Amino acid sequence: MEFTNYEPGEYAREHIRITPTTLSDGREFFYLDDEPDYVAGRKVRELRDPRQLADRFANQLDPEGNEVPYAAPLMRRDPLTGDWVPMATARMNRPINIGPGATATGNPLAARKPGDPYQDGEVPDVDYDVVVFENRFPSMVQVPGRDRDAVAHVDGNPLWLEKPAAGRCEVICFDPDEHGLPADLPVERLRTVVEAWAFRTAELSAIDGIEQVYPFENHGQEIGVSLAHPHGQVYAYPYIAPRLETELRHTEAYFQETGGNLLRDIMDAEVAAEERVVMENGSWVGYVPAAARWPLEVHVAPKRDVLTLDELDDAERWDLAQMYSTLLKRGNTFFDRGDGKGMDLPYIAAWHQAPVRDSRRDHYRLNLQFFSFRRAANKVKYLAGSESGMAAWVSDTTPELIAQRFKELGPVRL
Amino acid sequence: MEFTNYEPGEYAREHIRITPTTLSDGREFFYLDDEPDYVAGRKVRELRDPRQLADRFANQLDPEGNEVPYAAPLMRRDPLTGDWVPMATARMNRPINIGPGATATGNPLAARKPGDPYQDGEVPDVDYDVVVFENRFPSMVQVPGRDRDAVAHVDGNPLWLEKPAAGRCEVICFDPDEHGLPADLPVERLRTVVEAWAFRTAELSAIDGIEQVYPFENHGQEIGVSLAHPHGQVYAYPYIAPRLETELRHTEAYFQETGGNLLRDIMDAEVAAEERVVMENGSWVGYVPAAARWPLEVHVAPKRDVLTLDELDDAERWDLAQMYSTLLKRGNTFFDRGDGKGMDLPYIAAWHQAPVRDSRRDHYRLNLQFFSFRRAANKVKYLAGSESGMAAWVSDTTPELIAQRFKELGPVRL
Repeated sequence: MEFTNYEPGEYAREHIRITPTTLSDGREFFYLDDEPDYVAGRKVRELRDPRQLADRFANQLDPEGNEVPYAAPLMRRDPLTGDWVPMATARMNRPINIGPGATATGNPLAARKPGDPYQDGEVPDVDYDVVVFENRFPSMVQVPGRDRDAVAHVDGNPLWLEKPAAGRCEVICFDPDEHGLPADLPVERLRTVVEAWAFRTAELSAIDGIEQVYPFENHGQEIGVSLAHPHGQVYAYPYIAPRLETELRHTEAYFQETGGNLLRDIMDAEVAAEERVVMENGSWVGYVPAAARWPLEVHVAPKRDVLTLDELDDAERWDLAQMYSTLLKRGNTFFDRGDGKGMDLPYIAAWHQAPVRDSRRDHYRLNLQFFSFRRAANKVKYLAGSESGMAAWVSDTTPELIAQRFKELGPVRL
Repeated sequence: MEFTNYEPGEYAREHIRITPTTLSDGREFFYLDDEPDYVAGRKVRELRDPRQLADRFANQLDPEGNEVPYAAPLMRRDPLTGDWVPMATARMNRPINIGPGATATGNPLAARKPGDPYQDGEVPDVDYDVVVFENRFPSMVQVPGRDRDAVAHVDGNPLWLEKPAAGRCEVICFDPDEHGLPADLPVERLRTVVEAWAFRTAELSAIDGIEQVYPFENHGQEIGVSLAHPHGQVYAYPYIAPRLETELRHTEAYFQETGGNLLRDIMDAEVAAEERVVMENGSWVGYVPAAARWPLEVHVAPKRDVLTLDELDDAERWDLAQMYSTLLKRGNTFFDRGDGKGMDLPYIAAWHQAPVRDSRRDHYRLNLQFFSFRRAANKVKYLAGSESGMAAWVSDTTPELIAQRFKELGPVRL
């Protein structure tokens, strides 16, 4: 058993233990333990995946039964927008968003039952705190021995570029209890989730060809998450995603014009305006942005200039866990169902980090964009013709009303 | 009764009659009749809205009961993306997407019942073919006498621009039968819908401050359309929507580099490649774009270089109605439920037109982008973390598979 070469910092060295292993089909898998027995090294992780899965890059059978090389996912560039679009044909028959290894009967994120020699899941051990592993049905993957940069022209036309979708898709499982909510996890556990985000950012950024590391959380049936088990994901894109590209264009232009960092100046402006600041602690500020487009939207920014999650120091990681916990809890009480009990808010938590190697990275700044499609206890905002067709959002509320409601749910100073 | 000053072309002059009127709160309303009695001028439209609505821009009562000026919708510019976000607080309590004038009991798009002195709908007459009118709960509107360009700084900070959302939102009702589907309308009626798109493009483009005219159709409960009555919308944005802006950046760069029109060259390349061309008639081509991002996506382009819908000649309008009809019908049989009966496909039909006055308009080209969120008879594609958070689409299929399925549904040559 070896520790990963990642340096998780002082706090993590004391309180968190990272144990790498490999699933039987060759995918990487990591335990992140905040449980004292594991951290103290007294327990030893069961590292053997009891399944005997075929190597994930093994030859496959085509519809006629012939053995053919593994069909790696490809991506094409849309000449009208410049966007790369991974095409994940292998995922066509997978259960929707249900994550790796899922079947109709099993929860792939469950720990093995003690004494049970086999369970149809992805976790080899009988318990865990947080685990991270490569998605079994990735829309992007790097295939050993294949040229990541092999560009082809679709139908021989140079308008249409096609190349391997040589990124990486990982799953982060937040807790062994499949019935819990991320909002109800103790701050200590969310601290380990923060460590997972930072750890994966560091390791994935070191992989050749990765341009952006994007930890995110989809939560709620309303956005298609059919697996209730608390979990998030990390996409390591082999390109800069369109939204980050747009932001980089603006942060860079702002730097060229003013010498300043747009994201810092936005945060400072929100702090100065005060009205939309909904949370603050030692190292973070949470605010509803002045031009919020979602019915519930909060951006969380570090007070110190930080580009990526792995640059956060121990105090910042701890403070982030506290603020994330508060954000999720208040999110669940934001919409009043009339019984005062709150609800399980569907949300997307999206980490915007500086790109891995793009020259504009130094003028960006780490921020979390947290938002919900829900616009009332019984209403959802749909992304219809204006949003889906023209990327033109229309807000049904105002940033000030969102902030006002947040402030009713608890003090700004955490 | 006067005809509008719009020139609807030879075909329309013969076959379509446009009758403008005004609803009792001051909104513009247009009948577009393809019904012979109306076209021949034998019948006279009932033009009196029987409701006595207050003028839509009249003073309003605030929560304390004080009379205050009409609160026009505003929009703010997001400094991180450059996007303008209209904030439609007045729409907060409206039934979701149910359209103008709706109540829990009424269909606002229904014609008045003969002999019924009042019905809670938007249509004054007892029948109609196609009607167009301004949305009663617009997210964008131009208020007479107010300065459209009055820019304010939110909280006094020049990072945050705010100004009136001085656009326009209109509803197009396709047919008086609330139980029909657009796919089942006769081509003659869809021809009148095409006329409505062209007519509104011409008139809305002539309004000061309008930068883009966007006719679109949201169809299906799955995207939040709770009003089944066949209808579409037109948004006249006082800015160029982010998606069109991205496209213009690419079409302009392509022109600067090659002297060519990117959208024409894409269409020509699809025709040359042939594999993804799913429909063709005298003046239009329908193809699955080589980098399609939706599980069902078809782009429809005119063979002749045309910038906007109102530039289409009579033959092109007629051919478009035929192709749109075919597209909708085939869309409804695209996903096999197993009973061979097809389904009511949820879709978004998005007209991409050259902007009204942007200098890059001449290097753009009219196209319809038609797509569906549905990815199987019983599955929907959700816009989760990658799409909603990073605008990074991942396709679960390939353009060639989409095209292959379309070709099973009918001949390419219409």
